[in-house]
Amino acid sequence: MLPAIAWKNGALVMVDQRRLPWKEEYLTLKTVEEVARAIEDMVIRGAPAIGIAAAYGLALGILNLGPGDNAERAFDKFYRRLWRTRPTARNLFWALERMKRVYEENRGRKLAELKRVLLAEARAIEKEDLEINRKIGENGASLVPEGATILTHCNAGALATAGYGTALGVIRSAFARRKKIRVLACETRPFLQGARLTVWELTKDKIPVTLITDNMAGWLMRRGEVGLVIVGADRIARNGDTANKIGTYSLAVLARQHRLPFYVAAPLSTFDFSLKSGQDIPIEERRAEEVRRIGGQLITVPEVPVKNPAFDVTPGRLISAIITEKGIIRPPFTPAIAKLKLRG
Amino acid sequence: MLPAIAWKNGALVMVDQRRLPWKEEYLTLKTVEEVARAIEDMVIRGAPAIGIAAAYGLALGILNLGPGDNAERAFDKFYRRLWRTRPTARNLFWALERMKRVYEENRGRKLAELKRVLLAEARAIEKEDLEINRKIGENGASLVPEGATILTHCNAGALATAGYGTALGVIRSAFARRKKIRVLACETRPFLQGARLTVWELTKDKIPVTLITDNMAGWLMRRGEVGLVIVGADRIARNGDTANKIGTYSLAVLARQHRLPFYVAAPLSTFDFSLKSGQDIPIEERRAEEVRRIGGQLITVPEVPVKNPAFDVTPGRLISAIITEKGIIRPPFTPAIAKLKLRG
Repeated sequence: MLPAIAWKNGALVMVDQRRLPWKEEYLTLKTVEEVARAIEDMVIRGAPAIGIAAAYGLALGILNLGPGDNAERAFDKFYRRLWRTRPTARNLFWALERMKRVYEENRGRKLAELKRVLLAEARAIEKEDLEINRKIGENGASLVPEGATILTHCNAGALATAGYGTALGVIRSAFARRKKIRVLACETRPFLQGARLTVWELTKDKIPVTLITDNMAGWLMRRGEVGLVIVGADRIARNGDTANKIGTYSLAVLARQHRLPFYVAAPLSTFDFSLKSGQDIPIEERRAEEVRRIGGQLITVPEVPVKNPAFDVTPGRLISAIITEKGIIRPPFTPAIAKLKLRG
Repeated sequence: MLPAIAWKNGALVMVDQRRLPWKEEYLTLKTVEEVARAIEDMVIRGAPAIGIAAAYGLALGILNLGPGDNAERAFDKFYRRLWRTRPTARNLFWALERMKRVYEENRGRKLAELKRVLLAEARAIEKEDLEINRKIGENGASLVPEGATILTHCNAGALATAGYGTALGVIRSAFARRKKIRVLACETRPFLQGARLTVWELTKDKIPVTLITDNMAGWLMRRGEVGLVIVGADRIARNGDTANKIGTYSLAVLARQHRLPFYVAAPLSTFDFSLKSGQDIPIEERRAEEVRRIGGQLITVPEVPVKNPAFDVTPGRLISAIITEKGIIRPPFTPAIAKLKLRG
């Protein structure tokens, strides 16, 4: 398996995650607009992977410029196009801001030089993300007891990152230490990232995984069949409030009710240090058809009204710990995250 | 729309609920075996409807007997065949036991007479169920505030009963009183009874309904978009512990967490007075393919292990009230249910 995203022969190559696990199809993207649409349409998804895609998208835009083009105006246009692809994941904005800093530091240099530094920055973001995931995995493995059954939601795996994964990185790391773990994957309606992506990834790695529907999690906890929960994150506020895939909040409430640890695994690039709490995290509302259809097939009455918030916010008080590349932080999160920021 | 189940020209006619809402196809069943398979394969589902189908199934078996057949042995065989179709819903066993009592009271009478009384009893079970649902609706309407948004799970509607419905009966009754209610229907994976059946029923009745995925319920509660929860039941123990469609338990925990009323609507035939608590309710585990596929389409890696408990048990302590045809009962449920039994 190739990584979810790779820079290859001057273009951005990504597996079309909408078609997994049925088909392993790779798309080659050559323009900013193609990258922006790939993010909007969820060809690629997962907060860190979206950030990497956006960084490469910006680089791609500049690489496509000719001698007569106005780099300043072009950069600004590309930046704004990518900025509005999806609203919730912090990593998108983090990566764009990082690229912009590099652009500004090199503003006025020759176009060829600008191309070089921006592509190098995008590559660095990708490379660092992989290292960060390995570090998150290492840090989190200590939280996974021998023989544990770990429930996870959505896909916070190799497909959601530069590789290895955040929540699945912790699971991979625990598995590599021969902890005899088992994973319960929530299918994660409406987009089925759990059933399609997490099951696919873990099966490839021969990590024991069992698929459940989202509404089974509480009952399995009650029956004593869940040991802990680990999920990824799309945006974390200064007090630990965490936006993640819709359904995460319910799992956190259920985990607390059953006295199970609930862990979030995320890189520093997912933290939004500008937000005091999760209240101001914008929650994306996606198209009704994603709920009305599964794999193209209508599952309900056509035109029935639908709600489709793609994310929810889990209050920090329901989170046992957040696993980052800089270490594990625990409540109270406000001071712990302030310290993390200084180290970041 | 015809009712979910009807006796017509000496046969049992039922809409194939597996094909709704795509196709309104009616099956005509003429043997016990056909009825048993229709129950097992979920052509018909919903605790009261299963009971009615089983009663007619038994009658059908006896109606098919000829002068040379041993009615005693045949009855026993049919009874046992239908008994083992599905394990959780109390109404199945309640209806079979009721038919058996009539059989035993008429044992030794002429075959023609036996046919007449058994068919009459099945018809009575059906007719009474419709009246009971209307009564449940009437009783429950007072619990629904003006302008309320009611969350429901699975389908406890006309399709799950002789008509009108239990949970949806309460909703229909509140709607008929012009209470300006709105319904949130959880899609109810894996079988999608909410998306397919509840949305279909309510849309036909012009009751405003919005479809959500199961994992959105908690977040909508947190956002203040849910006023109360009403669900049906498959089996209720003497202490109020209630088996119902998988996912119900999680909704009850979430409702309690958000201080929302959580109501169960069910006829007395759903109560299992032999069970002190829900601990001994058998929970059906259904085929893995129901989770791995949606509408025939594989949504995950083939052969991935799956859990598929079709029901869960909600502890009585999480239930605000149970709405029956004999009135509304409230905690503590053990004495309330004991009293109910005396009135039943």
